[in-house]
Amino acid sequence: MIWCSGWQLASAVSNAGGLGLIGAGSMDPDIMEEHIRKCRNATKRPFGVNIPLLYQHVEEQIKRVVRNEIKIVFTSGGNPAKWTSFLKEHGITVVHVTANIKSALKSEQAGVDAVVAEGFEAGGHNGKEETTTFALIPLVRRNISLPLIAAGGIATGRGMLAALALGADGVQIGSRFVASEESSAHPAFKQKILDAADGDTMLVLKKTVPVRLLRNKLFYQIQEIEQHGGSVEELLHLLGAGRARKGMFEGNIDEGELEIGQVAALIDEIKPAATIIREIMNEYHEAKLEICRNTFDNVTTG
Amino acid sequence: MIWCSGWQLASAVSNAGGLGLIGAGSMDPDIMEEHIRKCRNATKRPFGVNIPLLYQHVEEQIKRVVRNEIKIVFTSGGNPAKWTSFLKEHGITVVHVTANIKSALKSEQAGVDAVVAEGFEAGGHNGKEETTTFALIPLVRRNISLPLIAAGGIATGRGMLAALALGADGVQIGSRFVASEESSAHPAFKQKILDAADGDTMLVLKKTVPVRLLRNKLFYQIQEIEQHGGSVEELLHLLGAGRARKGMFEGNIDEGELEIGQVAALIDEIKPAATIIREIMNEYHEAKLEICRNTFDNVTTG
Repeated sequence: MIWCSGWQLASAVSNAGGLGLIGAGSMDPDIMEEHIRKCRNATKRPFGVNIPLLYQHVEEQIKRVVRNEIKIVFTSGGNPAKWTSFLKEHGITVVHVTANIKSALKSEQAGVDAVVAEGFEAGGHNGKEETTTFALIPLVRRNISLPLIAAGGIATGRGMLAALALGADGVQIGSRFVASEESSAHPAFKQKILDAADGDTMLVLKKTVPVRLLRNKLFYQIQEIEQHGGSVEELLHLLGAGRARKGMFEGNIDEGELEIGQVAALIDEIKPAATIIREIMNEYHEAKLEICRNTFDNVTTG
Repeated sequence: MIWCSGWQLASAVSNAGGLGLIGAGSMDPDIMEEHIRKCRNATKRPFGVNIPLLYQHVEEQIKRVVRNEIKIVFTSGGNPAKWTSFLKEHGITVVHVTANIKSALKSEQAGVDAVVAEGFEAGGHNGKEETTTFALIPLVRRNISLPLIAAGGIATGRGMLAALALGADGVQIGSRFVASEESSAHPAFKQKILDAADGDTMLVLKKTVPVRLLRNKLFYQIQEIEQHGGSVEELLHLLGAGRARKGMFEGNIDEGELEIGQVAALIDEIKPAATIIREIMNEYHEAKLEICRNTFDNVTTG
């Protein structure tokens, strides 16, 4: 959710009954503090900060979330053992994002409060195992007893119900909110999400840090290098710096990185975050009633 | 299910209340007819034949299923327009396996009776779009009104419930039955399935016909060629002929192709097909009751 989830989106989600997260991966510590302050002014409800452990500024970001009395931190990428105890000592609820059993177990050992298990279909950074949400949730569920949040492929109430059926306790939704009114994604990027069909996102950079991107000019340049056995150096040279900002925040649709999940193909309209949450909850309850109605039919007739 | 689903497995599944399918992709027409005869002797319930449209013998297999008065044919790979009308004219129910919206629409136009939508996590042949079950089911559901069967990643009752929540009308289960007592998979291959962990299967041969394989010596040889930008010819030369038979049927674990889905990581025990079906149905009903119990709690308190 880098470049997409600032204080506007986080506060809108929290005000609508979700847990909004500020995506700090694209923020230097001062900017992050500004977003925290503004988010606090915009909502009285809890919100959290997501800190990818692989980016620069991690140490300073961790210090600042403590200083700003943030109560919930999601960490992703990197080793959950590194910062979990420090955050817990400061009374912070810690959730780590994983894509495989090994890292889920490591998170549990590190003392996190919950785990996000994110499948292959998710946008942005992704696991090397390529395990999908459908396979990953039951696998992680079987191996840890912590609260389990499913991510990857979830954009609707039916998706939420399916994730809970697979054994999750809750869901994390990214892509659907990138295409919200309050997201700070550039309008040109949001339009690309609405236009996306199945097969329009693909996982690349598997030798370094796998990332799911919308197919655009940059994507095809990356793919060309990879399919011809190009080196990691060649890829890093092509990517340079600031490609994510360029694509998602500045709207340079050809030259920038456009991180989004496979569910982009299900997204047809930019809506306010509150509408998205209401629609997801409505569909969730309807789908649940539909299934339960059948249950009672079966019980009656069988 | 080539090399795994002969008359023993198909009849065991049908006798236990499922729809057993004979996987004809690995059978020449005479062998297929023998399996049909034996299957008919072993069950009074309906069963079907799966005919991959990309293999040799297709025309002869189609003729023979008609001659043998088979009532249900699943076709996969290739163009659904080619054989559907012919099969329908002979009173056969036709189901086509798809991995994307385009092919689902094409199947509907061709007049099939139902569609299997199979996600990226499935074993064996697979779509180029890499769309996972979680994303694919709602996408296909939204685009066609035919009965929709979900496949890929489903090995448990919770998986079945999740697939129905996403909009499917039924499920097709492959990998779980490869590891059944009645499957004709070689015992050494079955053991590899029990040993598999998350990340142990991977999609390869993306430039030709993508296929999900267990990581073994052959897999790493394929990967080596692909990562160095090797040509399709180089790959075909490595593969030669009979790699699937060698791995799955003859049990040559290093040199053969081992086609299995990501759910291999969830499979711990070889069981009779009837036990597998009973366990799936029990778990499905329990998971459903759990969700519905919560529904009524919510209704009561809310």
